[in-house]
Amino acid sequence: MLPTIEWRGDHVVMIDQRRLPGEEIYLECRTAEDVAVAIEKMIIRGAPAIGVAAAFGVALGLSRVQNAAAAPDEFERVSARLHGTRPTARNLFWALERMRTAFERYRRLPLGELKAGLIREALDIEREDAEINRTIGRFGADLINDGDAVLTHCNAGGLATAAYGTAVGVIRSAFEQGKKIRVFADETRPFLQGARLTAWELEKLGIPYFVITDNMAGWLMKKGEIALAVVGADRIARNGDTANKIGTYSVAVLAKENAIPFYVAAPLSTFDFSLATGDAIPIEERSPLEVKEINGKLITPPGARVRNPAFDVTPASYIAAIITEKGIVRPPYEESLKALR
Amino acid sequence: MLPTIEWRGDHVVMIDQRRLPGEEIYLECRTAEDVAVAIEKMIIRGAPAIGVAAAFGVALGLSRVQNAAAAPDEFERVSARLHGTRPTARNLFWALERMRTAFERYRRLPLGELKAGLIREALDIEREDAEINRTIGRFGADLINDGDAVLTHCNAGGLATAAYGTAVGVIRSAFEQGKKIRVFADETRPFLQGARLTAWELEKLGIPYFVITDNMAGWLMKKGEIALAVVGADRIARNGDTANKIGTYSVAVLAKENAIPFYVAAPLSTFDFSLATGDAIPIEERSPLEVKEINGKLITPPGARVRNPAFDVTPASYIAAIITEKGIVRPPYEESLKALR
Repeated sequence: MLPTIEWRGDHVVMIDQRRLPGEEIYLECRTAEDVAVAIEKMIIRGAPAIGVAAAFGVALGLSRVQNAAAAPDEFERVSARLHGTRPTARNLFWALERMRTAFERYRRLPLGELKAGLIREALDIEREDAEINRTIGRFGADLINDGDAVLTHCNAGGLATAAYGTAVGVIRSAFEQGKKIRVFADETRPFLQGARLTAWELEKLGIPYFVITDNMAGWLMKKGEIALAVVGADRIARNGDTANKIGTYSVAVLAKENAIPFYVAAPLSTFDFSLATGDAIPIEERSPLEVKEINGKLITPPGARVRNPAFDVTPASYIAAIITEKGIVRPPYEESLKALR
Repeated sequence: MLPTIEWRGDHVVMIDQRRLPGEEIYLECRTAEDVAVAIEKMIIRGAPAIGVAAAFGVALGLSRVQNAAAAPDEFERVSARLHGTRPTARNLFWALERMRTAFERYRRLPLGELKAGLIREALDIEREDAEINRTIGRFGADLINDGDAVLTHCNAGGLATAAYGTAVGVIRSAFEQGKKIRVFADETRPFLQGARLTAWELEKLGIPYFVITDNMAGWLMKKGEIALAVVGADRIARNGDTANKIGTYSVAVLAKENAIPFYVAAPLSTFDFSLATGDAIPIEERSPLEVKEINGKLITPPGARVRNPAFDVTPASYIAAIITEKGIVRPPYEESLKALR
């Protein structure tokens, strides 16, 4: 499997996640603007992957600068452009802050070294994210027993990260340990990340799976067909409240009602320790057309009004544990996360 | 608005519910087999509408009989064919039992009178269902306050009944009383009855509505945007356990968690008093293609396995009240339903 995004010296290549699983098309981004548009249009999506893409976006933007004096302004312009692409995922802002720190570190060096330093930083972010996901996977695999059916929502797989995946990484790690497991993948309307992306990944990995519509998960839990749920995250407040793809809150409530553990898998770069609770996490509302059309064909009356919040916030009280690269964190999260840092 | 299904002397006409809202196409059914196929393919769907269709199917089947001696065998053949079309909706079996009673009543009369009697019985079932829905609507409207936002799942509207609708009938009745309400219509994957049919009906009725994906309902409840939920039913056991479109159970759990009343609206023909609880209600599992394809285009990898239970069972403990044509029934349902009968 090719990586989600790859640095190619003077541009990045990413797989177009809108076209999967039907078509495997790779797009070249040659400018920071190309990357910003790719994030906005969800050509690349998933909180950690967005962070990696934004880092490459900054590196690309600065690589075009012709003289050192223009670098600070260009850095601010490019950062602001990428900053405004999507509001919810913490990793985007985390990566931009890290690129800013790198910029400050290298800005007094000759322009060529500044450019090289920023590219190195972006590549570090990418490499570290892949390693972090493997570590999360190893920790999380302990929560999955031989024979378990695991529910996941949206795509928190290799495509949502630099590689390997967070929630799918946990599943994958258990599978690689030889545990006989099967996955229920919520299709995840409106963008169908589950039916399209998680299914595509699980297919390639040879992990047995079923795609279900989002409204089937509760009933399968009730029927005793699901042992646990594990999802990724877009932003986690310091009390453990977790923003993730719309529908995650419902999965968590249904899991609690059926006494099924509900886990979140996420790197520390997804945590926003500046937020006391999830109430302050901005929730993106996306285009009505994502709900009204499927494959470019209208499914509602033309005049239908719709809602399209792209994320929801699951209160920490529904979360049995959060799996990070530093270990598994249990409630009360405020205390256990403090200990982790 | 034309009725869902209409008797035309020697055939019935029904709107093709698979093609709405994009195309309003009417199909003619000239034989019982045509009607059976229409039910199987969900050209017509919705428990009460299926019951009406089956009654017309029997009437059509018997209208072809050439001599009185052949009538009993033909009745058995046609009944069995219609009986086997779909397993969950009680109204199908209820309507076939009623047609059997009519057949027994008229079988010793001249063939022409038998045929006319069966047609009359089917027309009675249709007319009564329309009246019953208006009565359900009047009772249920009391549960909706001015300014309420009402969530509904699937389509329990005019298209799911002879006319007017059960859950949508309740909404409609409140709207006709001048209450300012708005509706959130779950799109209801996989068949999209909400996005396609409920939206189409609400649009024609001028009732303000939003279509949402099924996984948004919980979050909107959490945000305080929904005052109550009302759904239809396919079969109700005598303890109040209710089979309805897949996803209904999840709506009920999420409503309970958010202290929002969850109501079921259904005629007495939907009740199965032979069943002590919902555990014995057969749940239809439909074709994988309904999940894997939308508008005929694959959304999953070609080899994906899926689940496709068409219904789920909501335990009575989640149901604040059941709205029937005899009035509003409250828990404990075993007792209150006994009183009703």
